[in-house]
Amino acid sequence: MPQVAQQQKVNPGTTKIEGHLLVKCVDQSGIVSKLSTFLYTHGANIVESSQYSNDPEGGMFFIRLAYHIDHQEAVMSKMEQDFKELVEDYQMSYQFYYPTIKKRAAIFVSKDLNCLMELLWEWKNGDLLMDIPLIISNNEAARNIAEIHNIPFYYIPANKEIRAQVEQQQIELLEKYDIDFIVLARYMQILTPQFVAHFEHRIINIHHSFLPAFIGADPYSRAHKRGVKLIGATSHYVTNDLDEGPIIEQDVERVDHRDDVASLKKIGGKIERRVLARAVRWHLENRIIVEGNKTIVFH
Amino acid sequence: MPQVAQQQKVNPGTTKIEGHLLVKCVDQSGIVSKLSTFLYTHGANIVESSQYSNDPEGGMFFIRLAYHIDHQEAVMSKMEQDFKELVEDYQMSYQFYYPTIKKRAAIFVSKDLNCLMELLWEWKNGDLLMDIPLIISNNEAARNIAEIHNIPFYYIPANKEIRAQVEQQQIELLEKYDIDFIVLARYMQILTPQFVAHFEHRIINIHHSFLPAFIGADPYSRAHKRGVKLIGATSHYVTNDLDEGPIIEQDVERVDHRDDVASLKKIGGKIERRVLARAVRWHLENRIIVEGNKTIVFH
Amino acid sequence: MPQVAQQQKVNPGTTKIEGHLLVKCVDQSGIVSKLSTFLYTHGANIVESSQYSNDPEGGMFFIRLAYHIDHQEAVMSKMEQDFKELVEDYQMSYQFYYPTIKKRAAIFVSKDLNCLMELLWEWKNGDLLMDIPLIISNNEAARNIAEIHNIPFYYIPANKEIRAQVEQQQIELLEKYDIDFIVLARYMQILTPQFVAHFEHRIINIHHSFLPAFIGADPYSRAHKRGVKLIGATSHYVTNDLDEGPIIEQDVERVDHRDDVASLKKIGGKIERRVLARAVRWHLENRIIVEGNKTIVFH
Amino acid sequence: MPQVAQQQKVNPGTTKIEGHLLVKCVDQSGIVSKLSTFLYTHGANIVESSQYSNDPEGGMFFIRLAYHIDHQEAVMSKMEQDFKELVEDYQMSYQFYYPTIKKRAAIFVSKDLNCLMELLWEWKNGDLLMDIPLIISNNEAARNIAEIHNIPFYYIPANKEIRAQVEQQQIELLEKYDIDFIVLARYMQILTPQFVAHFEHRIINIHHSFLPAFIGADPYSRAHKRGVKLIGATSHYVTNDLDEGPIIEQDVERVDHRDDVASLKKIGGKIERRVLARAVRWHLENRIIVEGNKTIVFH
Repeated sequence: MPQVAQQQKVNPGTTKIEGHLLVKCVDQSGIVSKLSTFLYTHGANIVESSQYSNDPEGGMFFIRLAYHIDHQEAVMSKMEQDFKELVEDYQMSYQFYYPTIKKRAAIFVSKDLNCLMELLWEWKNGDLLMDIPLIISNNEAARNIAEIHNIPFYYIPANKEIRAQVEQQQIELLEKYDIDFIVLARYMQILTPQFVAHFEHRIINIHHSFLPAFIGADPYSRAHKRGVKLIGATSHYVTNDLDEGPIIEQDVERVDHRDDVASLKKIGGKIERRVLARAVRWHLENRIIVEGNKTIVFH
Repeated sequence: MPQVAQQQKVNPGTTKIEGHLLVKCVDQSGIVSKLSTFLYTHGANIVESSQYSNDPEGGMFFIRLAYHIDHQEAVMSKMEQDFKELVEDYQMSYQFYYPTIKKRAAIFVSKDLNCLMELLWEWKNGDLLMDIPLIISNNEAARNIAEIHNIPFYYIPANKEIRAQVEQQQIELLEKYDIDFIVLARYMQILTPQFVAHFEHRIINIHHSFLPAFIGADPYSRAHKRGVKLIGATSHYVTNDLDEGPIIEQDVERVDHRDDVASLKKIGGKIERRVLARAVRWHLENRIIVEGNKTIVFH
Repeated sequence: MPQVAQQQKVNPGTTKIEGHLLVKCVDQSGIVSKLSTFLYTHGANIVESSQYSNDPEGGMFFIRLAYHIDHQEAVMSKMEQDFKELVEDYQMSYQFYYPTIKKRAAIFVSKDLNCLMELLWEWKNGDLLMDIPLIISNNEAARNIAEIHNIPFYYIPANKEIRAQVEQQQIELLEKYDIDFIVLARYMQILTPQFVAHFEHRIINIHHSFLPAFIGADPYSRAHKRGVKLIGATSHYVTNDLDEGPIIEQDVERVDHRDDVASLKKIGGKIERRVLARAVRWHLENRIIVEGNKTIVFH
Repeated sequence: MPQVAQQQKVNPGTTKIEGHLLVKCVDQSGIVSKLSTFLYTHGANIVESSQYSNDPEGGMFFIRLAYHIDHQEAVMSKMEQDFKELVEDYQMSYQFYYPTIKKRAAIFVSKDLNCLMELLWEWKNGDLLMDIPLIISNNEAARNIAEIHNIPFYYIPANKEIRAQVEQQQIELLEKYDIDFIVLARYMQILTPQFVAHFEHRIINIHHSFLPAFIGADPYSRAHKRGVKLIGATSHYVTNDLDEGPIIEQDVERVDHRDDVASLKKIGGKIERRVLARAVRWHLENRIIVEGNKTIVFH
């Protein structure tokens, strides 16, 4: 589960805010009762609850609880403090989130701006509750759209040879801007294990095929060559195995023999942008738990 | 919520069985904690939990809890007995179900056998856990397929003029066979309010359009005349307002100018059969709560 | 079929351009041979051909022929001139188009900018080959986006009482800018029969429901109240019967009980924008023939 | 293009029947005019026409012409005879078909009967115009359903070791029954190159994944392990490269983390059966032309 410690500072107040509690532990009797009673006795009213066990006999248990709670520092910090005891008893991995404390996203992009534009559109519409402190690109193409949206734009040329120093520069920027997660909105560079390790399960990529078909470069050309009747896109968390990370979302569209590679790219672009936007939204809504190389997405 | 009292007799045993508890009440603080703790203290282990409030401020609260419990009459009846106290405190409407106690379905059909065949197919495959004690039709067309499946077939000619006596005969059969719910698998007769009242929210119909478009007769002809680019089907609980009952499921397929009415019927038939099969499965899995003229379907 | 006479002026040249010939007439033997031979003998090479008869016995025949032809005024005008003889023999209604001569669209919009933004996006991407000489709105909301794209923006307040004078002003603008067709990208005003008559089958509207369900105002509220499991959008040519014109394209998305009206609007907005963009593209590609109150769309 | 010579014997008569002419040749000017004029002058009235060039500059040209013609041996054989001259001039590969002369299909199946049942269902409904002279299986599971439909059932145990003699026995049966094409409706045996060579582009397989993902065995287990959010099925013509033949049709369904392998199989089974049924229908309607390792499907 993403560790986003800096999100937990909240301002005092008396109105209600929404909180999310995500928990992962070995499945055991009474866990739902324990958690829901804990929230109740701490003044939190559950408004949404989703759970999953990957094996009824001794498997892992996952739950996402959304609740309303008084927007008071004392109430919230006491709850988080008290929860630590429960954690020890049940050996839970867990995380509290408050959507009003917006996650801070860095968007990486290259020349193809479709996914970036979709994210900015939905962000402006209020559908993606996040801050976007910066956009990083190895291409000047996105500068104009970044500036229209008043988002600092960093042009950092990148290629295989200078990867280490490029990533060093990027990490400094990401730390300076206190970034929570990264969206690779068609950023056509491979990241090093060092970089990925900095942001475990916090880098969301869009790959332009329905994985695991067409891993790697030029998926549209290869889809054309193979003569598939559907093309797709896949959003996943980045790991060190190229295009092998935990899948968050996939979608497809129908194509036919008349579609050449250029046409597949156009159709595919529409799939990419909606698949990535969904994955980012679910990440922001804390709907995703990573388990092994798979995701649990609580809709 | 359907009242299916006769399902609650269970045989003694020591293995675990699955139970479902569906609850509806005014939303109030602590309700999830109360219910989950109740189940826990009665030896039930929650494996699935879905809830919904139609208004965070004083609206209605709905929950479906699936749990594992010892298959012992004493355990289960004590839990159901004790639950009555909780019910009074919270003024709940509720229902316990045990999927191993199969619901008993009567299928009504006329001349078009597509939906009937799909139901029987999925039923034989083990995807629809129900008993089918009888099939009733105003047409001999289904007799053969009923007999292949060893299901008693009742041919009861029906038309507007003899509706009252036909329904009397049907109700006697449904009572004799101890029927829990009725599936209208393209039964082309309108039911009287008296009949519908006997089986409130327990008659599932399939209408061959995406309601509320094309209410009433001949939806495919009217869809053709209107030149729609999608046709659909809708499964809903039957009420006294024709095609106006709570919608359970809908789906559509793409059509174009080349499709004449016969072609729309063929395409539509494929939609009808999968929409009806899904609605029946969700009904069997106790995933549906009716509220007003709408359904809450917990997936 | 739309009459777009001003599109037929072409510049001299020797390279090939694409042409489209759309024909409608009573079905008769030998018509395909006649048309294809006519094109061949006039130096046009057919690259795409789609035909349809609405009744094999004495029905109407429709064909769309796409061809490559020398980009020379003499060649093209001779072909168009000679075609008039054929027309008389077969009593054809027909139209020649050359996609390189871009159609000129006026976009009408109110406060909701989603559809407008999608059209401008695809237009900038080169997916909608048209000129957009002006945007007209009864709201200032779109001014900024129009100016970013260097498109003249006309704010014309409109309401029921001043409809006649508003439309007079609009028609003058449309004539001044030599407009071929109008896109109502969520323009929340009803047009008079006089206005519609000026642009028969040349006004494309987007309605925010899967017609014929939820004709008229507030479709999302009514969809919510009815409890549908799918919501949709419909693009159609405007006629004098509200939301009853020939349907060009429809699409839907799945929703559930958790979606309130605001959520339906968000989901619906995504359907609207893609449905309208497709309808406009097919109109630009001359893929649509209107017959009675239906469309033939040659994909 | 499939060579189905035996389909070309037609009975004399005076009523109209439908014919299909499929042609493949190097793209050249005037070819559409030539073909349509040929049909017209031989008394054939074109009712449907679809064409495609894979490269406007010197690529291959493909056309499917559907026409009505007098059902008289003399008329039809003269047309086919005369066509041979045209063929030489243009170096065409071509085929005449008459849908009233039903193709003869052998269905191969193993233990999973879903696809077989769908084919038989649609066949009985009149949606698949073919004869099914026999069903061959390496398992007794399908015997009962074959006998219900009065189709000879041949149980031929098969495994790696005895492949050659098994195929010998199968080929003798296929020749005895004068079979035009084979449908592998989940037949879990690999065919030898010798067998495949006998039926080039006339063996239709269903693979239970969205190829090229999950080629080979156990695609559902591997899909589960990879955590995909969509599963699919692919129908293709069989070649000597396992699961690499020309794709005819593909489709997918959404799944989520709660679906275990058994659940994926159930969902996948519904995709398989509709994908295979579509591929068989398009094959029967002569809508498919194979070019290299891809298909052109004229809808």
